[in-house]
Amino acid sequence: MVKLVIDMMGGDNGYAITIEAVKNFLANHDDCEIIAVGDEKALEPLKGVVSKIIPSQSVLPMECGVMQAMRQKDSSCYKAISAVNEEKADGVLSAGSTGAFLSLATLINKKIPGVERPALISPFPTRVPGKNVVLLDVGATSDNSPEDLFQFAKMGEAYFKAAYGEEAKNIKLIANGTEEGKGNNLTKKANALLKANPNYKGLIEARHVLDGEADVVVFDGFTGNVFLKGVEGVAKMMGGMMKEAFLASFSSKMGYLLAKKSFKPMIKLMDYKRVGGALLIGVNTVAVKAHGNSDAYSFGNALTLTYTLAKNKMVDQIKENL
Amino acid sequence: MVKLVIDMMGGDNGYAITIEAVKNFLANHDDCEIIAVGDEKALEPLKGVVSKIIPSQSVLPMECGVMQAMRQKDSSCYKAISAVNEEKADGVLSAGSTGAFLSLATLINKKIPGVERPALISPFPTRVPGKNVVLLDVGATSDNSPEDLFQFAKMGEAYFKAAYGEEAKNIKLIANGTEEGKGNNLTKKANALLKANPNYKGLIEARHVLDGEADVVVFDGFTGNVFLKGVEGVAKMMGGMMKEAFLASFSSKMGYLLAKKSFKPMIKLMDYKRVGGALLIGVNTVAVKAHGNSDAYSFGNALTLTYTLAKNKMVDQIKENL
Repeated sequence: MVKLVIDMMGGDNGYAITIEAVKNFLANHDDCEIIAVGDEKALEPLKGVVSKIIPSQSVLPMECGVMQAMRQKDSSCYKAISAVNEEKADGVLSAGSTGAFLSLATLINKKIPGVERPALISPFPTRVPGKNVVLLDVGATSDNSPEDLFQFAKMGEAYFKAAYGEEAKNIKLIANGTEEGKGNNLTKKANALLKANPNYKGLIEARHVLDGEADVVVFDGFTGNVFLKGVEGVAKMMGGMMKEAFLASFSSKMGYLLAKKSFKPMIKLMDYKRVGGALLIGVNTVAVKAHGNSDAYSFGNALTLTYTLAKNKMVDQIKENL
Repeated sequence: MVKLVIDMMGGDNGYAITIEAVKNFLANHDDCEIIAVGDEKALEPLKGVVSKIIPSQSVLPMECGVMQAMRQKDSSCYKAISAVNEEKADGVLSAGSTGAFLSLATLINKKIPGVERPALISPFPTRVPGKNVVLLDVGATSDNSPEDLFQFAKMGEAYFKAAYGEEAKNIKLIANGTEEGKGNNLTKKANALLKANPNYKGLIEARHVLDGEADVVVFDGFTGNVFLKGVEGVAKMMGGMMKEAFLASFSSKMGYLLAKKSFKPMIKLMDYKRVGGALLIGVNTVAVKAHGNSDAYSFGNALTLTYTLAKNKMVDQIKENL
């Protein structure tokens, strides 16, 4: 039995989407029990569906600082993360403030023994249909040591195995070129350490990260954050321009009707809601952060991810891996 | 009179495209003289068109190391960059190896007094039609000090003024968030220094770099390279997928014919050939590096950029700015 705790309040879209996602999920998974955190009245529809409701009427704001996150002990995020320890749950999911979620999960669930810095890990679609690449750290940390990057590779491996059931045979390290001697001081030292990992296959340039060949790409948290947000930004911009172009005239709208079917694979690929969420890796639970603006579909995908990683014992695999 | 030196051999597409670009350019600019470096026989069509031909039969390979670049003194790149000093030219353009070009320009043209690290600067189209944002450093350096980033802002300002005739009133520094305290150690220190620059407007997240609001965005060379290549990679991938989608079936091809006109602004925006090239800023000349795979159109745009920056005395503006 997999036991998960869900912060039902954190996202922009509130109970409507989290309740629907939980109901749909439980209808299809009889080996999972869910503890829901939120307003008891609002969660009325989940009575008899979830195994427990932990009451909370307070939600952390999206731009919440660490101090507030720690102080506001009755917030749904705080209560959900605490419930992982108290209820011996296998994972936790929230669509609330990323900063608060990362801080609270690190402080309350605690780091796995031996882990220096937990990382924010994000699966990302590639140009190869159905193939995701796993990127970390994309923003839990800002300054890293070579040893951090070595551990990120190990944690990325464990995630890949738990999420996709396969060994990550192609781990890469981001750099500004792939020739000998490329990279900044951090990259050069990390590259030397990483050679001890048999699945490590060397440096990769940013232009090849989404080619679909790499399984895991290791970044320092600052660069990873810039890469992720830059790529998301340009994809969103181009997606918006495509939509505008198709809507621009009667003729282009007709064109859309004719071309629509052929654009489906691209639209599917670009649908970040499929991916569901990022994960804080390196703490003693499966801590998944869904997008703040999740709808029931993407929150459901984040829930499935939490379940899959918990069921496949990702945390144990990290412990073994380190 | 603006005097420019052109490496006619460096690019993937050889004389055919460089000769055409030079001819077209000179037909429209009577205040510019050009010194062409390359094989005298191949450059026959330019006799009487350019002011001088400097013979060279040797071209540096694209993946050329610094040592080879320095040693191969008869290469077209070496001769072109040397000619800037010998002929007192105002600028130099090559489509050859970026690494060789950057090293040779730094070593031969020398840094502007007071400049710590020359930077590779790249104008980039934004979602606002006709508005470019200027990014630096995108890869001349790998490890930077806060003082480097402060100077990058100054040099970016001078470029913006010389290229677009306007003051850069919105200079930003890349970071992993914009709240107080965001950034890595380097960002935090650079942010403090940059506050002395009245045009500096604080931190920017990668997702907003191409919004069209920022005039100049400062990166350390490693992060800038990852951002630039990541964004180019995803834009190319999406452009390729769009093309595939339109070509997928008879129906989608018909759709393309109907929608084509509406897609023109997007296709124009994504046309990196319009931008022409990147520039090594901080050396004693206008040193422009065109794309290796330039065609006559994009090489011509790079030539126009070199001419514009030389005519507007960018190098003098940097000296004043520092």
